[in-house]
Amino acid sequence: MKRTLAVLVQNQPGVLNRVAGLFSRRVYNIHSLNVGVTDDPEVSRMTIIVDGDEQIIEQVTKQLHKLIDVIKVSDITDDPSVDREMVLFKVKAEAAVRGEIMQIAEIFRSRIVDFSKKSMIIETTGDQGKLNAIENALKPFGIIEMVRTGVISMVRGSK
Amino acid sequence: MKRTLAVLVQNQPGVLNRVAGLFSRRVYNIHSLNVGVTDDPEVSRMTIIVDGDEQIIEQVTKQLHKLIDVIKVSDITDDPSVDREMVLFKVKAEAAVRGEIMQIAEIFRSRIVDFSKKSMIIETTGDQGKLNAIENALKPFGIIEMVRTGVISMVRGSK
Repeated sequence: MKRTLAVLVQNQPGVLNRVAGLFSRRVYNIHSLNVGVTDDPEVSRMTIIVDGDEQIIEQVTKQLHKLIDVIKVSDITDDPSVDREMVLFKVKAEAAVRGEIMQIAEIFRSRIVDFSKKSMIIETTGDQGKLNAIENALKPFGIIEMVRTGVISMVRGSK
Repeated sequence: MKRTLAVLVQNQPGVLNRVAGLFSRRVYNIHSLNVGVTDDPEVSRMTIIVDGDEQIIEQVTKQLHKLIDVIKVSDITDDPSVDREMVLFKVKAEAAVRGEIMQIAEIFRSRIVDFSKKSMIIETTGDQGKLNAIENALKPFGIIEMVRTGVISMVRGSK
């Protein structure tokens, strides 16, 4: 089962290592991880998606709280949330198929962010279902490269 | 100076830890890091933005190559590339200011992905300059929360 943790940390060198180290020493598998600064440049926020049941997550949360530089850990799996990822696809695109690829991009509300004689780069955002769907739609043309950001999560509404 | 590394790794538990460990032991500062699977589910790609000059990056690259699970390391700093990040902003949004916030979202080609009585979540993608600009535009309304994916990078064109 996948659980989503939002972790606020002091923006210090080595903090990512300590957090990742905690997971790997205990053989928890990190499915996806992001780090980005918040509106306070001293504070970063990690979104960690980890495989495990509630008991394991409880242990992990306790361990995380013990690390210096960790400010707050929230398990937001069961909160109603916006879960989104960005993906860049580089797709083979000779002149003859460009129109068709542009249609797919439009259907998925995606953007073409690079263009060359033989390829295009398409930027798309969404949940896993949408990203899988566009990947399948683009596959027949030939995906040269695919880069994903990993999922970020934000709890809906304002408490 | 910031350098951008694209690192392909075997998708194994612990690989993130080994990579992050390498940077922290040597006191290189990771500015931003992403991990996401590629079109081959056995292979993940990391985009790492690190502070350092060319000599330091050369050392890091050599060290990375020594790690098991690391398939390929490319310094793509000087390649023409698409560098983009996704950010979610949760902004205070009482009825009276909603119109104005929606205008800002439109100007920055952003999307409103959640709505409640008192707040909205805005999804936006772009380079650092654009993201800073929209952050400044939204600040006066009150940013409740901001989550960033970190930057992903893809070399333009097809070699």
